[in-house]
Amino acid sequence: MVHSGVYFKAENLQRTGSFKVRPALTQVFQLSERARTKGIVTSSSGNFAQGAAFAAKCFGLSAKIVMMKSSNPLKVERTKRLGGEVVFCADDFEARQQTVDEIREQEGRAEIHPFDRILVIVGNASIGAEIIEQFPDVEHVLVPVSGGGLISGVACAIKLLKPSVRVYGVQPQGSNATFLSYREQRPVKIDRAVTIADGLMVTKPGKLTFPLIQKYVDEFFLVQEETLLEGVRSLLLEEKLVVEPSAVVTLAAILEGQVTPENTVCLLSGGNVSPELLIQVAGS
Amino acid sequence: MVHSGVYFKAENLQRTGSFKVRPALTQVFQLSERARTKGIVTSSSGNFAQGAAFAAKCFGLSAKIVMMKSSNPLKVERTKRLGGEVVFCADDFEARQQTVDEIREQEGRAEIHPFDRILVIVGNASIGAEIIEQFPDVEHVLVPVSGGGLISGVACAIKLLKPSVRVYGVQPQGSNATFLSYREQRPVKIDRAVTIADGLMVTKPGKLTFPLIQKYVDEFFLVQEETLLEGVRSLLLEEKLVVEPSAVVTLAAILEGQVTPENTVCLLSGGNVSPELLIQVAGS
Repeated sequence: MVHSGVYFKAENLQRTGSFKVRPALTQVFQLSERARTKGIVTSSSGNFAQGAAFAAKCFGLSAKIVMMKSSNPLKVERTKRLGGEVVFCADDFEARQQTVDEIREQEGRAEIHPFDRILVIVGNASIGAEIIEQFPDVEHVLVPVSGGGLISGVACAIKLLKPSVRVYGVQPQGSNATFLSYREQRPVKIDRAVTIADGLMVTKPGKLTFPLIQKYVDEFFLVQEETLLEGVRSLLLEEKLVVEPSAVVTLAAILEGQVTPENTVCLLSGGNVSPELLIQVAGS
Repeated sequence: MVHSGVYFKAENLQRTGSFKVRPALTQVFQLSERARTKGIVTSSSGNFAQGAAFAAKCFGLSAKIVMMKSSNPLKVERTKRLGGEVVFCADDFEARQQTVDEIREQEGRAEIHPFDRILVIVGNASIGAEIIEQFPDVEHVLVPVSGGGLISGVACAIKLLKPSVRVYGVQPQGSNATFLSYREQRPVKIDRAVTIADGLMVTKPGKLTFPLIQKYVDEFFLVQEETLLEGVRSLLLEEKLVVEPSAVVTLAAILEGQVTPENTVCLLSGGNVSPELLIQVAGS
């Protein structure tokens, strides 16, 4: 009743608590028998770490996950619990990639990627296909955007299966690189992202994803930080769903009146929030 | 991974946040055209209030819901938001029923009931049928028990459709009337229920429900209060589901090692928790 006309694709209920397990699985699945014996390596400070550990476990592979020393201990703990071997590195992206490169070269592990790879887009396309299958009357689909790996897959599948469905990207105002790029029709890089949506921190769209976004996404919205907390609270108390701020940008666009909620699917991309954030929103 | 072998029938995601909308709908659906013009009346301090208001709204009926003055303001607010007209009464069960009786007689409204009516059992049976349909490999089903309206319906449907599936009732230690009745093979009344599971406060099994429980329930368990909070926390942080303590008794039986989790369905009966409880469990 509260969100009449709105439907949720609840990837917060997905294994490992986010959609990231899909692109991890598509990449691990494609490895040769020989590559599988060596295992995988990747880097992530967020949901992809858990997705990769889970995917490796599904196929009985060894997984090394490079995480920055300052990573959220809860995410480290969950990655380990899924069987991932966590390797810590210094707190910058260069050090992180360097550590991955070393492990890949020394141990012959296959690197899998969180975004901007064709197999990532393929994995995420499964979400678009499921939306069409599960909700044939869908007219509008709202998708959270960071570097664009999620929305490019979702939009490709939807425009292939049912081109009349409109696909919208949503970013928080504090992290708007792909929004700006879409508007200016060229890749725009921002200096840094400042938002509580900690899964949407990429500062420029991907090389592979941006042309797909230009081709298949119908419109882009920006939402405010305050609406994210309102959305998390509403989903928690009214819909009984734990959803992370990065995921709730889609509902936020509706709460702000930017989209008319009619046969509209909000993709809720994940639910990995800290207990501290839950306490904050429940108490607000 | 955390609860391997365990599946959830997530009635916390049901309309109005609990299974109670089912028995409300079966009762409203059976009303004559004439009765429908007069509307309904019922009493509840919990989930049935919202279920009844929602059911009335579905059929375009007027609904008066009698609630005690001390009722949780959040539940009052939600009942009103669903279109229910809330009538307050004194803080005891006799006053509550008396108020219902007066309204029924003066306004000619049809009374609908939260438990111990055949149409309640029929409504709840739909959950058992859905479990068999949605999870054909199911072997064990755990059901929260108060006066027995939920489990008698669920057990009837399951034993009709697939008698090899075992059905277990679960009560919290502080509210064990139906557990004691089952063990002693006669209705036992307890003085009062003391538990955080505020949906499981009935102090004796129903007249209609108890014979069905004796006939169709395979075993009964009691769980501890502490395990309820542990279960709410685990579902919140690991499964991204908001579930109320009354509902989590089923998972608690598994967490306590009373049931082997293999093709086991935990019926999560509802998710209407206060923000205060969420803060408590997230912070623990």
